[in-house]
Amino acid sequence: MPTVIAVDAMGSDKAPKPEVEGAILATRHYDVRVLLVGREDKLREEMALHPAAARLPIEIVNATEVIGMDEKAASAVRSKRDSSMRVGLRLVREGTAAGFTTAGNTGAAMATAKMVLGALPGVDRPALAAVFPSSKGTATILVDVGANVDCKPQNLEQFAIMGEMYSRSIFNIPRPRVGLLSVGEEESKGNDLTKDAYPLLKRLPINFVGNVEGRDLYNGNADVIVCDGFIGNVALKVSEGLVEAVRFLLKESLKSTISSQVGFLLSKKAFADFKKRLDYAEYGGAPLLGLKGVCIVGHGSSNGTAIKNAIRVAAQFADSKINAKIEQEIANEKMAHAD
Amino acid sequence: MPTVIAVDAMGSDKAPKPEVEGAILATRHYDVRVLLVGREDKLREEMALHPAAARLPIEIVNATEVIGMDEKAASAVRSKRDSSMRVGLRLVREGTAAGFTTAGNTGAAMATAKMVLGALPGVDRPALAAVFPSSKGTATILVDVGANVDCKPQNLEQFAIMGEMYSRSIFNIPRPRVGLLSVGEEESKGNDLTKDAYPLLKRLPINFVGNVEGRDLYNGNADVIVCDGFIGNVALKVSEGLVEAVRFLLKESLKSTISSQVGFLLSKKAFADFKKRLDYAEYGGAPLLGLKGVCIVGHGSSNGTAIKNAIRVAAQFADSKINAKIEQEIANEKMAHAD
Repeated sequence: MPTVIAVDAMGSDKAPKPEVEGAILATRHYDVRVLLVGREDKLREEMALHPAAARLPIEIVNATEVIGMDEKAASAVRSKRDSSMRVGLRLVREGTAAGFTTAGNTGAAMATAKMVLGALPGVDRPALAAVFPSSKGTATILVDVGANVDCKPQNLEQFAIMGEMYSRSIFNIPRPRVGLLSVGEEESKGNDLTKDAYPLLKRLPINFVGNVEGRDLYNGNADVIVCDGFIGNVALKVSEGLVEAVRFLLKESLKSTISSQVGFLLSKKAFADFKKRLDYAEYGGAPLLGLKGVCIVGHGSSNGTAIKNAIRVAAQFADSKINAKIEQEIANEKMAHAD
Repeated sequence: MPTVIAVDAMGSDKAPKPEVEGAILATRHYDVRVLLVGREDKLREEMALHPAAARLPIEIVNATEVIGMDEKAASAVRSKRDSSMRVGLRLVREGTAAGFTTAGNTGAAMATAKMVLGALPGVDRPALAAVFPSSKGTATILVDVGANVDCKPQNLEQFAIMGEMYSRSIFNIPRPRVGLLSVGEEESKGNDLTKDAYPLLKRLPINFVGNVEGRDLYNGNADVIVCDGFIGNVALKVSEGLVEAVRFLLKESLKSTISSQVGFLLSKKAFADFKKRLDYAEYGGAPLLGLKGVCIVGHGSSNGTAIKNAIRVAAQFADSKINAKIEQEIANEKMAHAD
């Protein structure tokens, strides 16, 4: 039986083109059935451009409203009851689809998913996980980058459980090294939050490697790093900004060399490769962990391949039963420290 | 009258070589007199390698102890009463020197400076300011990167006053744009700290541009950005880690191209240029703002030129009377809202 994935067909910057392409690629490559959720007329039109895809397991589910990239999450979620996000997530809640993916407004996706699917029992705050490429060719998962601000130590504890399970189930790391993002390696270094979270993480049945620092996001020293969502958001956006600045400054430096043309072309290619590695869309998007259901958030600039990858990750999430495992681990942890 | 700057001659990774070279360069280029603080025998030996420098205004001040790069700040400060840092900062306190610079252990420098010099009246927490290069060729000052964790809104308010004065006095920006680091531009976005700090910054007589995001550290949208020191430390170290990863991944990508040799050599040069621009040592080090005295912290890997720059910045700080101005601004602010 193919895994059924609902896709927000109106999410990305160039929707619905990348979504339709991604659905075609995914249904050709993987054992999945795709429900494309969005304006039926537009989707029929776009599908008609791919006559060879007519026999692929792709269906259209109508949703009349679209949440824009710059809309405020809270009001969009409340007012647009027939948005492609909301309809797609409803398909997951009612069991028609095993997972959902969107390349739309991240804030709205998080808010809608929390409302429609709800959190897993025992999970106080679902969290968004992003993947960072390391200089060793490995990947490091950072949880939370979804702006869960003013976290409590217990939130970080749950982020650690969820991130560890993500690394094991999807990245197949047998015993992920889990670090706590702080300002020094010693247990005594950090702020009130990390100092209180440290003992909670230490007693978990995971491979906790203690405090890690900002630079460990990119050197492969940890497979999973947990932090308050304010910090995670800053880390993600500082990285995006720096990559842009590096591109600019490298270009500028290369202009001043003799063989500037050659150097520029070469580094342009190298840079495109690099950006691809940095972009979390290439990893198939960022999962929202801790929900009663699978929801993968891709980048607004997703192309067909990125959507295909997000569909694959959504199917992997559904097939791996990661949510049931997270629920179990969190219940175990609560039992172990019930007193 | 030349400005007298005390230099920790035992601070950098390769001390005292870069410090002696930096002192020679600085006294040749600027109207400064340098007091090299450290082990007299070692310094005499090093100075003897530069016979032409014998007539420059450089003096040696003996200090028998050295604080190592990996020593814990708190214990080093307490136990080593004759360290080059402590002796150098004492020269500032007693008025023999107008400023001090060290390329040694940042934590120890901060702790020693706070203890020996003390904070300016009205300043609750002195802060470390780092300079980030923007893709527009400008510089953005981030305060605090010195791990002042668990800040209160009033701390951020003071960071804004101090950072703005730094930008005006040293970078000659007439009306610096000051931003508050958050997770979204709207006033309503952020955590408890930023939401409480926002109105305090808004009422200051500065050019407050509201919330900025992580990417604004590198795009020139603000001249000064304030944040809790935990966040600032993470932003700084994420940047350092990413630059390393970029170098590695670019090299890897370039290996796979035909003219890899050319491309590699070119990007190596470009990269060295870029790192130089990113490295705050090139800006002459990071100042500790809010102290009763001038203290500039350089990078451990400083070479002679970086030390020279740090001496220049220390002299600029002293000559610009920035501390008196900060004290005045903070007093004004307290008066304005004394109710």
